[in-house]
Amino acid sequence: MAEIRRDPITGRWIIASTDNPMGPEDFPVEEHRVPSTPCPFCPGNERMTPPEVAARRTNGGQANGPGWTLRVVPNKFPALRIEGNLNRLGQGLYDMMNGVGAHEVIIETPDHQKNLADFETVEMVPVLELYQERCRDLQKDKRFRYLLIFKNFGESAGASLSHPHTQLIALPIVPKRVLEELRRADLYFSQKERCVFCDMIHQELSEGERVILETSQMVCFAPFASRFPFELWILPKNHSADFTQIGPESLRDLAEILKQVLHRVQTVLHNPSYNFILHTSPLEATPHEGYHWHLEIMPRLTRVAGFEWGSGFYICPTPPELAASFLRGEKK
Amino acid sequence: MAEIRRDPITGRWIIASTDNPMGPEDFPVEEHRVPSTPCPFCPGNERMTPPEVAARRTNGGQANGPGWTLRVVPNKFPALRIEGNLNRLGQGLYDMMNGVGAHEVIIETPDHQKNLADFETVEMVPVLELYQERCRDLQKDKRFRYLLIFKNFGESAGASLSHPHTQLIALPIVPKRVLEELRRADLYFSQKERCVFCDMIHQELSEGERVILETSQMVCFAPFASRFPFELWILPKNHSADFTQIGPESLRDLAEILKQVLHRVQTVLHNPSYNFILHTSPLEATPHEGYHWHLEIMPRLTRVAGFEWGSGFYICPTPPELAASFLRGEKK
Repeated sequence: MAEIRRDPITGRWIIASTDNPMGPEDFPVEEHRVPSTPCPFCPGNERMTPPEVAARRTNGGQANGPGWTLRVVPNKFPALRIEGNLNRLGQGLYDMMNGVGAHEVIIETPDHQKNLADFETVEMVPVLELYQERCRDLQKDKRFRYLLIFKNFGESAGASLSHPHTQLIALPIVPKRVLEELRRADLYFSQKERCVFCDMIHQELSEGERVILETSQMVCFAPFASRFPFELWILPKNHSADFTQIGPESLRDLAEILKQVLHRVQTVLHNPSYNFILHTSPLEATPHEGYHWHLEIMPRLTRVAGFEWGSGFYICPTPPELAASFLRGEKK
Repeated sequence: MAEIRRDPITGRWIIASTDNPMGPEDFPVEEHRVPSTPCPFCPGNERMTPPEVAARRTNGGQANGPGWTLRVVPNKFPALRIEGNLNRLGQGLYDMMNGVGAHEVIIETPDHQKNLADFETVEMVPVLELYQERCRDLQKDKRFRYLLIFKNFGESAGASLSHPHTQLIALPIVPKRVLEELRRADLYFSQKERCVFCDMIHQELSEGERVILETSQMVCFAPFASRFPFELWILPKNHSADFTQIGPESLRDLAEILKQVLHRVQTVLHNPSYNFILHTSPLEATPHEGYHWHLEIMPRLTRVAGFEWGSGFYICPTPPELAASFLRGEKK
């Protein structure tokens, strides 16, 4: 019989199909077709993007020319624009504001063909440092309430360009998904004086069956109430609310575990499309003591359908315990 | 500049791309490939499904044999099963229960090739009557808290079989998406003694720019804070919380507007995949005075990506005013 499970962070329920669970070979293998059109993220094509806002050029070279190892540019088709004041407006029953925000693209390598899963730790560290650097810069803008870092890898994950890149959107509102986490985390903290994420990490490390990898600072597990098959979360083992505040040692550890986890996903699941999102504390004067930053990795192996859209429930055909045993390499 | 808009029912924010809006021809046209394997929903293959729970056989014929015009069967691979008691269990931090529920399939025609968008009103009415009949039957089961009717049409909407069918899942929990609507609708009602849906319908009919169709009892509009391009809602114009309670006249009107709306979606958007979901009042002794049943139609023209998963915000590339003008046939 299936199990109905609740995520303690968001209160979201999911249905884990324990009857006929699906393994890695039960999902269709996706072919990633690299389009042959000139790629705006490739060296030599710098003029195809808006002027860069940051870059790494260890061997010198002019801004907006080749020679970079990492490059950050505004999105050419931004969801939100940086210019203007935030105007709030009511229209009868409806609330709206103009689309002020920022939308940046972090180009993670000059090599079009390279996969983040094949990065060395020393290559991954500067990528994560750049995520932090861009957040610290955008934090200064008082119009923004939240910074969301996310990656779309592969067509099924919504990527329109295959050159390795991650996106950053600065929002004038704390988004709903983060608010849901914050509300329950705040409530838990007020009741117990403990962080619900810390308690979850403690339970996961004690039980072990959903843990995939552990480094000195970080842990990766398949969450108890996974929405998606092979969904994975990476969290710092010690309490930490704000990703932008973590030091070089934690960042190196994060680079190490992220690279290893992505490599396992690539190998075990045959290079699937995936999204990852980084949830960190909102840009507020008073920090949320009970919040804990984390990275959610969601391989796109199934389609979300009417039941999920209508209910907010998810049907997960691979229980997380089984996903973890495949990703640990115990089950083949 | 884009507009950030809030849905007054759920509080959900969306970003409407008003800068470079996408029209019907800007989305890839999906080919629906009908698989050649024997279809378990076709007449003559009745033994390929579990035994039927309801059917319409106007010209006679044995149960689980051919001759039916409509047929309801349990899902062969149910998300939840009808057998057993609901056992609630705590496991450290985590909450769970066993997967008790019901999962039925309503087969809407014996004709494998037929599209719901091509139904006549007289063919659509018995389909909707059967939705009501199944709900009324499942309502008697005290283990259930919510009945969700939903359709997945086409591969991109998660359909695994192309024969016209709709699904019904009975849940032991009121799902999150419905709770979100209920909470705000209850709050609105307690503040104003009015239904927020009724107020929304009033505003939409006065402004008119997002309205697609209207019958004597029903209205269809593109919601102000559409998550998806060409998202459409159908609602009864007069206050009504419970779909299962509506009478023959309303049901006939719903059949008429649904058929017309699906036909316009099919024509204008080139037969896209879509989901529809029916939100009605939960199975509670005390009805929610401020709730209003409705049908949400979501054509699957774009992919949901990392930003949406991470934020709960949606980027809608076609503002609803533009979608409505295309669907009204004013803009081509």
